Amino acid sequence: MAVTLDEVAEAAGVSKSTASRVLSGSSRVSAQTRRAVQSAAERLGYRPNRVASGLRTRRSNLIGLVITNLVNASFHVITEVLQQRLDECGYQVLLCVTDSDPARERRYLDTLLDHRVDGLVIVGTGENTDMVRQVSAAGIPVVNLMRAPVGVSGDCVMAGDREGAELAVQHLLGMGHRRIAFIGGPPEVDSGRDRYSGFVAALAAAGIEPYPALVARGPYTVPFGTESVMRLMAAAHPPTALYSANHEATFGTLGALVQLGVRVPEQLSLVCHEEAPWFPYWHPPITVVDNSARDLGELAVEQLLRRIDNRPDDAGAAPDDAGRLIRVGSRLVVRGSTAAPR
Amino acid sequence: MAVTLDEVAEAAGVSKSTASRVLSGSSRVSAQTRRAVQSAAERLGYRPNRVASGLRTRRSNLIGLVITNLVNASFHVITEVLQQRLDECGYQVLLCVTDSDPARERRYLDTLLDHRVDGLVIVGTGENTDMVRQVSAAGIPVVNLMRAPVGVSGDCVMAGDREGAELAVQHLLGMGHRRIAFIGGPPEVDSGRDRYSGFVAALAAAGIEPYPALVARGPYTVPFGTESVMRLMAAAHPPTALYSANHEATFGTLGALVQLGVRVPEQLSLVCHEEAPWFPYWHPPITVVDNSARDLGELAVEQLLRRIDNRPDDAGAAPDDAGRLIRVGSRLVVRGSTAAPR
Repeated sequence: MAVTLDEVAEAAGVSKSTASRVLSGSSRVSAQTRRAVQSAAERLGYRPNRVASGLRTRRSNLIGLVITNLVNASFHVITEVLQQRLDECGYQVLLCVTDSDPARERRYLDTLLDHRVDGLVIVGTGENTDMVRQVSAAGIPVVNLMRAPVGVSGDCVMAGDREGAELAVQHLLGMGHRRIAFIGGPPEVDSGRDRYSGFVAALAAAGIEPYPALVARGPYTVPFGTESVMRLMAAAHPPTALYSANHEATFGTLGALVQLGVRVPEQLSLVCHEEAPWFPYWHPPITVVDNSARDLGELAVEQLLRRIDNRPDDAGAAPDDAGRLIRVGSRLVVRGSTAAPR
Repeated sequence: MAVTLDEVAEAAGVSKSTASRVLSGSSRVSAQTRRAVQSAAERLGYRPNRVASGLRTRRSNLIGLVITNLVNASFHVITEVLQQRLDECGYQVLLCVTDSDPARERRYLDTLLDHRVDGLVIVGTGENTDMVRQVSAAGIPVVNLMRAPVGVSGDCVMAGDREGAELAVQHLLGMGHRRIAFIGGPPEVDSGRDRYSGFVAALAAAGIEPYPALVARGPYTVPFGTESVMRLMAAAHPPTALYSANHEATFGTLGALVQLGVRVPEQLSLVCHEEAPWFPYWHPPITVVDNSARDLGELAVEQLLRRIDNRPDDAGAAPDDAGRLIRVGSRLVVRGSTAAPR
């Protein structure tokens, strides 16, 4: 009763191997042939046994996604985009949420190898670069997303963190702010390091050195935001502007500002890094550095599929070289939380 | 060079079939035996070929999760909890985001069958109950989460929507409100229907009929929230309280209240349904009906694994009967957005 691959090939007027290539998601087939085979398969109700065909073709049509959490808006946007784009190309996503726990990440990487994934997209903790290299060495394409730990292998699709930080600080400087505070992530994480260096660079370009009393760098947690605001606003000369670059701390940062009764932007201008769907509705609407999470997801998929299919990239270079670094631009979205100091 | 199952069994002092059962995730093994086998496998660096073993055992160790989106806080909390709990039990999650599109959902169900998933958790659109029944009929356990479309098969783990709505309205009535407005989802979706019926029931118990001018039922979209607030607040006798039961519309609802300059709670008390991590930090902090997303995820996993392992449930009943309905309690979290009418 089950329809065979032979029947699909005959109905489509192609060889069995061509039909097989189309149905296994290979891109090395003309669009016309692809359509003919897919429509024949659909008409006949053909259902491949992916487990068995996985053994033959060594393709599982599974992609591993190792990611920090889904609460952060950038991460859940990336996960949605990635899953839907991969699905359109015939791949399903094995979701692995690490909570930044290196032991858990290690276990996931092991499991993904067991499941013979065809590719891996990872927002890495940076503690398991040896295993990520093993995955690469096993011939499985790897895209490092948003974080490029030292010694990692594979391609990197990175946010424009430094550039975004510069945009935020230049915006504040342009309004006349000089006492600009910074709440950021830890120096061990790319976004923590790069946003801080953008902050320092933009200040330096205006002839300003950061005031140590106005800088807070620490973990991606809500309490860190709360504590930092309490400390910064208690400084002998409090800031007139705050660049909040630690997204996970933002709930704490905003909560503490409300608790202290700080009026934004009258008393303190505020720029947050990474967009969230409720920022436009805050009182006042929050000026943000949008890190283009959607584009980060799209480009990670594109680069991964290019490696899987061994296609040359847009520049014409074959991708079988060392890892490529792709940076996605950030942009500033000005809303009501920033104004000239009074 | 590769370590074989025989070697693991020998090192653990058990038979090959026992070792196999442990490593394939079966629960029918004593805890002591499980530990012995797992520690031997780890010590020796054993890596099962899950694709090949999937063919032999007919287990893929994959679970399909079909869900509406990841932007809604309930959905991303559920996805995180479900993935991490299943991982602890040896299963990986194939994530499928539908955006409420029935055609996409249909394609996902097809693909999940191709991948021979061992189970399915679905927040269904309600348009593909025939296919969900086919999945069940193929012997794959199904848990319907948050939505139980008519004619669906499998177990259902549902939120306490009606009960939660009653809690919200009773809270407002208890403060002295009588003109209570409602913004909810469409009647075709469980949460839209059940929250409205709880709203009506709680009002009825206080001898009040809902004012049609104060009721808005419509799609789970941001613009619907904006439009509804504009209409409700323009009523000849505007409400003194609003129960916002349409979570996706909430961004629009809050934005419109800010835009109109409505003071909460002085001018309008507000209760929102479904918790979000930023609600405690809104001005004022928002009173919510928490639908216990974490518990919904946990219970869905528990029920699914029970079916996969064919274990009796806590009440001692074998689970090979018709689908079970499990309801997760809602609770009211009172914050600063509700007060007595002035």
